[in-house]
Amino acid sequence: MDTMGRHVIAELWGCPEDKLNDLHSIERIMVNAALEAGAEVREVAFHKFAPQGVSGVVIISESHLTIHSFPEHGYASIDVYTCGDRIDPNVACDYITKALGATRLESIQVPRGVGPIHVQDVKVRAL
Amino acid sequence: MDTMGRHVIAELWGCPEDKLNDLHSIERIMVNAALEAGAEVREVAFHKFAPQGVSGVVIISESHLTIHSFPEHGYASIDVYTCGDRIDPNVACDYITKALGATRLESIQVPRGVGPIHVQDVKVRAL
Repeated sequence: MDTMGRHVIAELWGCPEDKLNDLHSIERIMVNAALEAGAEVREVAFHKFAPQGVSGVVIISESHLTIHSFPEHGYASIDVYTCGDRIDPNVACDYITKALGATRLESIQVPRGVGPIHVQDVKVRAL
Repeated sequence: MDTMGRHVIAELWGCPEDKLNDLHSIERIMVNAALEAGAEVREVAFHKFAPQGVSGVVIISESHLTIHSFPEHGYASIDVYTCGDRIDPNVACDYITKALGATRLESIQVPRGVGPIHVQDVKVRAL
């Protein structure tokens, strides 16, 4: 398998607090984001923190999606990393951004497995 | 909880093929890397691909560690993301780099949860 991959690092702000504190909803959103992008889901692990916040990962055949939510700050930290060029990580990221009701997205894309690391596609979007 | 975090993205090259194809050894290395850095392990999920390669994640109270290995290329893609300033993600990254016998490390550090995304600490090291 080729090592080439694309890793989107996204910061979502302005998400409603209740959405960021709902483990089952977040798990469903992350799995659906993977499927929406055409990825194959392999493992799913989510954890709810006390008093608040959710962390989770979806391992896909093509790498992974992760989330860490901070409900009290309306903030969710998202990573979508896809190996190969069949799956576009931005499709999953856009799905998550919309589903979590973010009002602001900052993201960068980092090519993986292709030599010196550099940053592409810096985006800041009000939504 | 404060949103501030540090995310180390590392590309390991020159790792022995057998190390990159051993699910149980990689899982142990990733969990030990988290513990070595002083993190609290919450969830662990690893997957072995056919014919080769391992993907896995360790969710810690302070965020996550992930790995994707490509044994035939001697390449492992590593992420160590730690929230707060108590845990240094570089400690875990250095532990993994050594344990997997990499001969070359490329890494960047991306601050998370603190506003516009930028890249810090670009490193390229022959080992």
